[in-house]
Amino acid sequence: MAAATHGANVWAALASVRAKNPLVQCIANYVSMDLAANTLLAAGASPAMVHSAEEVEEFIQIAGALSVNIGTLSPPWVEGMRRAIAGAKEAGKPWVLDPVGVGATTYRTKICQELIAMGPTVIRGNASEILAAAGAATEATRGVDSSAASTDALSAAKQLATACGSVVAVSGAIDLITDGRRVLRVANGDPLLQKVTATGCSVTALIAVFLAANPELQPLEAAAYTLAYFGLAAQVAVEAHPGGPGTFRAHFLDALYALGEETVTQGALVSEDPL
Amino acid sequence: MAAATHGANVWAALASVRAKNPLVQCIANYVSMDLAANTLLAAGASPAMVHSAEEVEEFIQIAGALSVNIGTLSPPWVEGMRRAIAGAKEAGKPWVLDPVGVGATTYRTKICQELIAMGPTVIRGNASEILAAAGAATEATRGVDSSAASTDALSAAKQLATACGSVVAVSGAIDLITDGRRVLRVANGDPLLQKVTATGCSVTALIAVFLAANPELQPLEAAAYTLAYFGLAAQVAVEAHPGGPGTFRAHFLDALYALGEETVTQGALVSEDPL
Amino acid sequence: MAAATHGANVWAALASVRAKNPLVQCIANYVSMDLAANTLLAAGASPAMVHSAEEVEEFIQIAGALSVNIGTLSPPWVEGMRRAIAGAKEAGKPWVLDPVGVGATTYRTKICQELIAMGPTVIRGNASEILAAAGAATEATRGVDSSAASTDALSAAKQLATACGSVVAVSGAIDLITDGRRVLRVANGDPLLQKVTATGCSVTALIAVFLAANPELQPLEAAAYTLAYFGLAAQVAVEAHPGGPGTFRAHFLDALYALGEETVTQGALVSEDPL
Repeated sequence: MAAATHGANVWAALASVRAKNPLVQCIANYVSMDLAANTLLAAGASPAMVHSAEEVEEFIQIAGALSVNIGTLSPPWVEGMRRAIAGAKEAGKPWVLDPVGVGATTYRTKICQELIAMGPTVIRGNASEILAAAGAATEATRGVDSSAASTDALSAAKQLATACGSVVAVSGAIDLITDGRRVLRVANGDPLLQKVTATGCSVTALIAVFLAANPELQPLEAAAYTLAYFGLAAQVAVEAHPGGPGTFRAHFLDALYALGEETVTQGALVSEDPL
Repeated sequence: MAAATHGANVWAALASVRAKNPLVQCIANYVSMDLAANTLLAAGASPAMVHSAEEVEEFIQIAGALSVNIGTLSPPWVEGMRRAIAGAKEAGKPWVLDPVGVGATTYRTKICQELIAMGPTVIRGNASEILAAAGAATEATRGVDSSAASTDALSAAKQLATACGSVVAVSGAIDLITDGRRVLRVANGDPLLQKVTATGCSVTALIAVFLAANPELQPLEAAAYTLAYFGLAAQVAVEAHPGGPGTFRAHFLDALYALGEETVTQGALVSEDPL
Repeated sequence: MAAATHGANVWAALASVRAKNPLVQCIANYVSMDLAANTLLAAGASPAMVHSAEEVEEFIQIAGALSVNIGTLSPPWVEGMRRAIAGAKEAGKPWVLDPVGVGATTYRTKICQELIAMGPTVIRGNASEILAAAGAATEATRGVDSSAASTDALSAAKQLATACGSVVAVSGAIDLITDGRRVLRVANGDPLLQKVTATGCSVTALIAVFLAANPELQPLEAAAYTLAYFGLAAQVAVEAHPGGPGTFRAHFLDALYALGEETVTQGALVSEDPL
């Protein structure tokens, strides 16, 4: 599929989000809740941060998708994650996992493995996290920062995707998205995204939004289109308002809110590797 | 009372907040803490986010009012809410309830009913939440977003106000505030407020501030004046700096901080329905 | 040591942070996580918000320093704090304590005393907090706001520093930093910092960053240089972009990110009292 076609598809997927205003349940972490909620609102979705074991199973019934993030992990939240995921699976709703910092501690890795075994629709992380999640990491991760080039993680991502039947997305200078067989690449983004906390968590939650609003797309495409839209908004923000991470965050949300058809269709840089 | 008089009263109430710098205890939710705290600081108050059952009753003794928000509910926080409210009532301090997402799950509705039965000074929500809180909802709420026009909620708000002896404020294009008998309307605001997470939670906490700083006002007026000031700041921000939700949030806080007497007196749009 | 020399040292310490990109573990509070993480990223460090008793001891092994903040205290977090501090001490890593609101409630004071007894490398608070922490407070604190001039707190700070073998930093119009014997003063800063929530928490976490990246410095100097850099960024932001607290927050992060050698060397206002 040519890049130009992908650009039109990214726009169509975004237009569907804006038209449908999907309600997405997020079990986010304490750091990322504010930006994740604002990202979803700017994109045209309705975020609901609901994490408690007392209500997650009931809430997923009225939501279009679920996003699970292990950033600030603790046992009560893990119990909420388990029940929400079980509810999503039973209801046939897509769910997305962000394995923040997996590999950094034994507890985090154990919980992550348990959640991965529940079969996420999409897993998104940086290269270190995907390497750790795939059991392919040869070095300890450094928390949430990526210390491995994303290209190194492609074989790990394919392994992981095949093993758990998920789409795996690896964020980096070039994002890689694979279902274990096909590989899409997204060349949008800006380095300032890494200077603002919770941008990774936010794009993961946004993948859940795109899945909810675009059930006719394959998760491989839905994830790639989300990353392209998100990265393109960063580029547009930086180009129109050069500055540091503080003002960038504001202009980035403005761009997510405002991006129009021509910009998206022409600016989204999605390509597919030959099989 | 004419709108012009209300404008002067909104200014007087705000001036009192800025002069007295009231300390207000907030049991906020994880998503809204940042914006709620910054809203209170910009308005001239001192926010204290204190939620733990171990200290809430003692803390309310030194605070001027209490704000309770059920956004990211869990059992330990509910216990903190119960004790803080009991402490506020015993000490004769006003307290405000934001029934975020009530009606979305059984747990949330049950807790909300329990807290409402404790007699909040003011309850503020969107139309869906007030309908659900009043037991008048005929459809499930969609989390924190409003899916019913606020005017539909007036009779529910009056019922709820009468039943629990509270003032009930319904946010919408036109805010409605009632004590069960009198009805005030506030026509300030901007649609961008709904594209920034936690603005509803923040205005609820700000009502607690206005109550603490203006004990001579009736809660009906204090709530309406808060909504007028908050909405007017949004209008001023949008007019001076048109843009998207990211930059709006920053300019909105600037406006809360800077609004002067003439702007408030002339811009606050408060009116009262004939009895 | 002359102020000019201190200016060069502040720059050298900041340059070391940017070069080494230290990973710092933060047990922050719910309100401050977003700004604290963004402050650390803007300064050139890697923040990791990890609080759970299940993993804090393991995580500190890969981190360069630990920051502990008691803002939104509850028993499970206190257990995480205890274990993280024990791990930091055993591993010889520096750790910093922010005694937010100590003195406001019995619970908060008790926990704070316990943590102080564990011997923080640096304690940073406002004058009220340091007075309370030193057991010298004659009035109840008002939560997180300072109601005593920082100069009043100098003798309390010296007492506290001597008693617990820590460096004590008192934020105010002029920051005071003491090890019980020497006293450094920092004259950087802007009043708008007090109109943005979590700036105090953020500078405390940033002290941990400077300690991690500058092991050759004494903690007295590392703390003072952090406060000078942080306050100078506020000045630069206000001078270039006068406004209110909303836009200030964004420009402040931009300034932390961008401050260059000449600005820091000439603008850092650090002086030492004669012994």
